[in-house]
Amino acid sequence: MESHAPARGVDYSRIFTQAIDRLHAEGRYRVFIDILRNKGAYPNARCFAGHNGPKPITVWCSNDYLAMGQHPKVIAAMEEALHDVGAGSGGTRNIGGNTHYHVDLEGELADLHGKQGALLFTSGYVSNEATLATLAKILPGCIIFSDELNHASMIAGIRNAGCEKFVFRHNDLEHLEELLAAADPATPKLIAFESVYSMEGDIAPVEAICDLADKYNALTYLDEVHAVGMYGARGGGISERDGVADRLTIIEGTLGKAFGVMGGYIAADQMIVDVIRSYAPGFIFTTSLSPVLVAGVLASVRHLKASSVEREAQQAAAAKLKTMLAEAGLPVMPGDTHIVPLMVGDPARAKKISDILLAEYGVYVQPINYPTVPRGTERLRFTPGPAHTEAMMVELTEALSEIWSRLELRKAA
Amino acid sequence: MESHAPARGVDYSRIFTQAIDRLHAEGRYRVFIDILRNKGAYPNARCFAGHNGPKPITVWCSNDYLAMGQHPKVIAAMEEALHDVGAGSGGTRNIGGNTHYHVDLEGELADLHGKQGALLFTSGYVSNEATLATLAKILPGCIIFSDELNHASMIAGIRNAGCEKFVFRHNDLEHLEELLAAADPATPKLIAFESVYSMEGDIAPVEAICDLADKYNALTYLDEVHAVGMYGARGGGISERDGVADRLTIIEGTLGKAFGVMGGYIAADQMIVDVIRSYAPGFIFTTSLSPVLVAGVLASVRHLKASSVEREAQQAAAAKLKTMLAEAGLPVMPGDTHIVPLMVGDPARAKKISDILLAEYGVYVQPINYPTVPRGTERLRFTPGPAHTEAMMVELTEALSEIWSRLELRKAA
Repeated sequence: MESHAPARGVDYSRIFTQAIDRLHAEGRYRVFIDILRNKGAYPNARCFAGHNGPKPITVWCSNDYLAMGQHPKVIAAMEEALHDVGAGSGGTRNIGGNTHYHVDLEGELADLHGKQGALLFTSGYVSNEATLATLAKILPGCIIFSDELNHASMIAGIRNAGCEKFVFRHNDLEHLEELLAAADPATPKLIAFESVYSMEGDIAPVEAICDLADKYNALTYLDEVHAVGMYGARGGGISERDGVADRLTIIEGTLGKAFGVMGGYIAADQMIVDVIRSYAPGFIFTTSLSPVLVAGVLASVRHLKASSVEREAQQAAAAKLKTMLAEAGLPVMPGDTHIVPLMVGDPARAKKISDILLAEYGVYVQPINYPTVPRGTERLRFTPGPAHTEAMMVELTEALSEIWSRLELRKAA
Repeated sequence: MESHAPARGVDYSRIFTQAIDRLHAEGRYRVFIDILRNKGAYPNARCFAGHNGPKPITVWCSNDYLAMGQHPKVIAAMEEALHDVGAGSGGTRNIGGNTHYHVDLEGELADLHGKQGALLFTSGYVSNEATLATLAKILPGCIIFSDELNHASMIAGIRNAGCEKFVFRHNDLEHLEELLAAADPATPKLIAFESVYSMEGDIAPVEAICDLADKYNALTYLDEVHAVGMYGARGGGISERDGVADRLTIIEGTLGKAFGVMGGYIAADQMIVDVIRSYAPGFIFTTSLSPVLVAGVLASVRHLKASSVEREAQQAAAAKLKTMLAEAGLPVMPGDTHIVPLMVGDPARAKKISDILLAEYGVYVQPINYPTVPRGTERLRFTPGPAHTEAMMVELTEALSEIWSRLELRKAA
């Protein structure tokens, strides 16, 4: 930073240093763990951090929930596309980057959710940010009602919309109704929420929120990124499981978690898809997803529409791990989903546990700290899936019990 | 939209319909052209729109500028990664999605620009939006000075930062200095601009802007997305060509144009990379790039660091096409870059020319209209590359001449 010395008052280097120092002081400076997964052997992986050469580890915190990123059909589809059309799309959807794969996948995703249309984005983050910001700008005076635990990408979209917003307490129908009832009936309204909250592992009362939306003539925006592929008979998410997909205005999902690849999307009426497609800068002005990725997702979505084996094995693994952790007296958080969070409540201790697990036990689980979760609720978050064996769970539980004793941490109440 | 009828005053369906109707009325409603490129035969492709079965076309508007999306080294690297580690990364960079490929590519890109570090994003759009918004929030009272033709993603980042901004006339040093001189010396300042403006095909006076930045103690942010891979001895962009990379605070680039794959990045001092990595929601809260893509980019960047054949062939193709169009009396816009824009000045006519080219000549070039370019400057934009032959250029020029006569369009002055 020497070239930007404080010639006339502004010391940029000092400002940047202070920003990083704040993270260190709070114990939440993050270090990336450098890994490579072993295809066909997931959750096994190689870790490159802090030692000579790669070291074998077991991954316990991946969002490749169903190991579809390793599925032979997905790999074969990507290889075929790679050799058929090449590496990238070469342009935006409007200018040269709209391939037949994109068109097919949008049709497949619309069908998955029983909607007229779907629209692909480069990530789930961008789909949330771009759609919410654009919707609120198109609807004059729009008010957004947002669950307090909504993901950062939804919060970004709502803030970038510049519209009025009310935050309701997490999954609290009474609070939501109170806010809806107090708003002008003549004003456009949008309720933005998630189905599965990924850091808590709990599920929204989707149908009851749709009832409120009908009562107060509000649109609904449901983020299903931690549910698509994993819930519902065809993997359509909680909205499919609960039979309410047709009551939601927009369902948003990801292609990078249960579907195992990368990207995001919305599904909705054709007119809404057309509006977002035509007005959202985050959709218009960006190179479209590589056709290689899109081909992989097509195979993944089609497979999970027809097969429930992966979903059932995941639920069984999550239930088993929760039981084992609870029986060992570890503070596993309650919840009915595939996510297994273990409360720690302090960023430095969460990092310490994670460091010991990696260094001494070859177990990789990332500490989750602010801003991903509120301060004081730092945790470890395990995502068991079809490929995690009972032997791995026994090892994990024993390791955690040993560390909990060593660090004199509080056990479950 | 039947379920959202105007029960109490808000007719959502009508609002959305009006939004789409406005686009039709202005002649700028966009229809995606559905294509598949033929790997190994680019710019040949198959088009699926408006007829039975795929029809062969020649692509003239791809941003896969050097056809690296088809390069055997890139394809081989992606295939290897696909089989070694699988389809997706499975998580954010912080949580399970930091692979050894990502670490290697960031090292390679830092080296390309002679910077201490680099940071990958899922797209160039996100890298601009996230970096500019985060920088301006970290620097108290920051003022951004922005070229009036900056890309939508930079404009989004600046707007989302919520900071003060001044727009200077395109590439106008006097205007920029006037604005810098008028600002409080004690306030942090950032000059945001591009090297190659992709819709004009002109180049910024990078060195002179660095001089102004030094004089007024401003940071600099240079978007090189239409220059990396294509300018400079190793493809480091205009900043390498002009020998000024070390004077720029942040250089931003894309992996989806000349490098042929997908994604974006910044290169800067390690401390700035660390700040963005630690504070930017658009970086933190998103699944990282698929390792398959990253492996492909690694091969592409390494190849273009060592080989200038592609760059030279591209420049020769662009020069030849410009000459041919000019000699035919067509209104090709002046400029020293690889981009060949042909001015039309009306959205409906630009679309008409494009439609005729596709239907009658098998030539695919997208009309460029608002909001990508200012109203009244609608154009066609050709991107000849190493794979476009002289025969293709002759065909294109003859087709354009015929259409110009048929539609009685204005020839060059």
